Amino acid sequence: MQALTVEPGVAHSARVEEVDEPSGDGVLLRVLEVGVCGTDREISEGLYGVAPKGEQRLVIGHESLARVERDGHGFSKGDLVCATVRRSCGHCLACGEGAPDSCLTGDYTEHGITRLDGFACELVLEHPDFIVPIPRSLGRLAVLAEPTSICTRGVRHALTIGARQPWVPKRALVTGAGAVGLLSAMLLRLEGMEVCVASLEESSSIAEALGAEYVSTRSTDLAGLGPFDIVVEAAGVAQLMLDGLGLLARSGVCCLLGIDGRDGTAQIADKVIGSDTVLENRVLFGSVNAHHRDWVTGVEALDRARQQFPGALEELIALRVPLDRFEEAFAFHGGKATLVLAEPDS
Amino acid sequence: MQALTVEPGVAHSARVEEVDEPSGDGVLLRVLEVGVCGTDREISEGLYGVAPKGEQRLVIGHESLARVERDGHGFSKGDLVCATVRRSCGHCLACGEGAPDSCLTGDYTEHGITRLDGFACELVLEHPDFIVPIPRSLGRLAVLAEPTSICTRGVRHALTIGARQPWVPKRALVTGAGAVGLLSAMLLRLEGMEVCVASLEESSSIAEALGAEYVSTRSTDLAGLGPFDIVVEAAGVAQLMLDGLGLLARSGVCCLLGIDGRDGTAQIADKVIGSDTVLENRVLFGSVNAHHRDWVTGVEALDRARQQFPGALEELIALRVPLDRFEEAFAFHGGKATLVLAEPDS
Repeated sequence: MQALTVEPGVAHSARVEEVDEPSGDGVLLRVLEVGVCGTDREISEGLYGVAPKGEQRLVIGHESLARVERDGHGFSKGDLVCATVRRSCGHCLACGEGAPDSCLTGDYTEHGITRLDGFACELVLEHPDFIVPIPRSLGRLAVLAEPTSICTRGVRHALTIGARQPWVPKRALVTGAGAVGLLSAMLLRLEGMEVCVASLEESSSIAEALGAEYVSTRSTDLAGLGPFDIVVEAAGVAQLMLDGLGLLARSGVCCLLGIDGRDGTAQIADKVIGSDTVLENRVLFGSVNAHHRDWVTGVEALDRARQQFPGALEELIALRVPLDRFEEAFAFHGGKATLVLAEPDS
Repeated sequence: MQALTVEPGVAHSARVEEVDEPSGDGVLLRVLEVGVCGTDREISEGLYGVAPKGEQRLVIGHESLARVERDGHGFSKGDLVCATVRRSCGHCLACGEGAPDSCLTGDYTEHGITRLDGFACELVLEHPDFIVPIPRSLGRLAVLAEPTSICTRGVRHALTIGARQPWVPKRALVTGAGAVGLLSAMLLRLEGMEVCVASLEESSSIAEALGAEYVSTRSTDLAGLGPFDIVVEAAGVAQLMLDGLGLLARSGVCCLLGIDGRDGTAQIADKVIGSDTVLENRVLFGSVNAHHRDWVTGVEALDRARQQFPGALEELIALRVPLDRFEEAFAFHGGKATLVLAEPDS
């Protein structure tokens, strides 16, 4: 069967090649579509990723949408599903409690990223514990389930942290208008919050379709828009992450979902971290990956958003190309790009 | 009766003067001792503090130990008590729920600091809701109840935030060896954690009496000591606060209790905030003031620490002078200084 593989650490090594079909027990899945994100782009540039033990190449792809190929394990042939990404390290408290999203050792594995082959291939065999059912009404849009699960976890943690004291968040800011930023805005809107999305682009029809205000950071100083009860940083810019602390209201929570691994430094006024943050009980935290429950509630949220914000999710999936045109998907930056392996009803 | 007052905003305006005795309903308290902290020093330097409405001068003192003067309201003459500091703004969710420590408006008042006279006077009339009973076994050491309540809240919030995911904190770092730093170390030790206290001084016999390791930041690079599950910043140095993020283990929580209102800037490597903080689910948060429950559990903790770490709390209260020698207490920086107004059994 065909798979998109890379040699981790080697730039531009991505290629579609023949690999063996999976065999054994488990739920056999026919992959329909995989989303492409910044992590995939970094892997294809040789900056990230680890091949499975004993292998030189890694099948990439961690944002999956698939169809069950045979009855069994509580699933029926034809069911739409997603497979989750991270697997437990097997030897820490968090992983032992089924929460590899907060693995305490760092020895976890991740499909398509770290030591486990991914989903950019025709067939996948998966343990039923790691499969999330997709409502037929959501259909193809469920290819957004993985980035949505990331945002669902981030928002859940922000709300949990905020709830350590009496607090009702009303205004939220999201920096960055990529998939993670817009899906975070979607979740915050579904929570009933007033949401502002800020990014470099001049406008965002998707943000508007979600009922959020959109501001371009090229023409607007974020400091003038605050304070916010929740800030979600999804642009992956360290300085914006730190700036989040200064944009918070009393008891406000800043959630970092983007990644910035560059070699710079970020700065903050002593007064903001040393006085405002303390005297106003502000919080900044990072969130990575997602718990199984975040996949389930994230999928539910997507299906609600599909009805509540018509057209927004459809517009977010901006480029769909077949597997062999992966280079177009990697080069695309105007929204979510996906690789299509099969149609749902094929 | 005698009281220590200041004219807020005017440096060196502190003086002992005659003020009217309180009258009306409530619990009448004879103040025995008040602790002096950095906030009192800032107020005496004219940098902080607001007089009660219509008044020019403010009675200072917010770290109280007192004796009940007459039976009633559930208290008996002779009971040892403390009075809490902050009072609700009266018009926000948090204050409405009895949590002025997380007041959402900033319109709260604080005895001895903001718009309410403090406890550095002979007699105080207090509502019973704001009085915390002190076990006779703790005695004079209960003058540490207020700073302990601050630390109790900080540690409680750190543990609550950390508990949003499976986590058992084992190693903690406290920066700063003033009262707030050492009392935080005490609480973390009582929680069974391995604790390292780091400060400018060469040694700290109190930290050692608490069973903590002590390191001098003049000779030791903190980066070599990590990672820590909990970091408590109690030195009031913005750069140390931000550095805390870099010293955390996976799922670690950094709690800021010190205040730094200076005009500098603090820096952090993009990689620490933009990558490590996100990929390892790290948290940084500020904590101010205390909930009533933190006073109660803080007093219990002090009484346990008195038995478990003999001599440590006694040594922490390093200078006790009568009210009219307040200048000595303000100038003292070798531990907690207190102003003694009366003896418990006088």
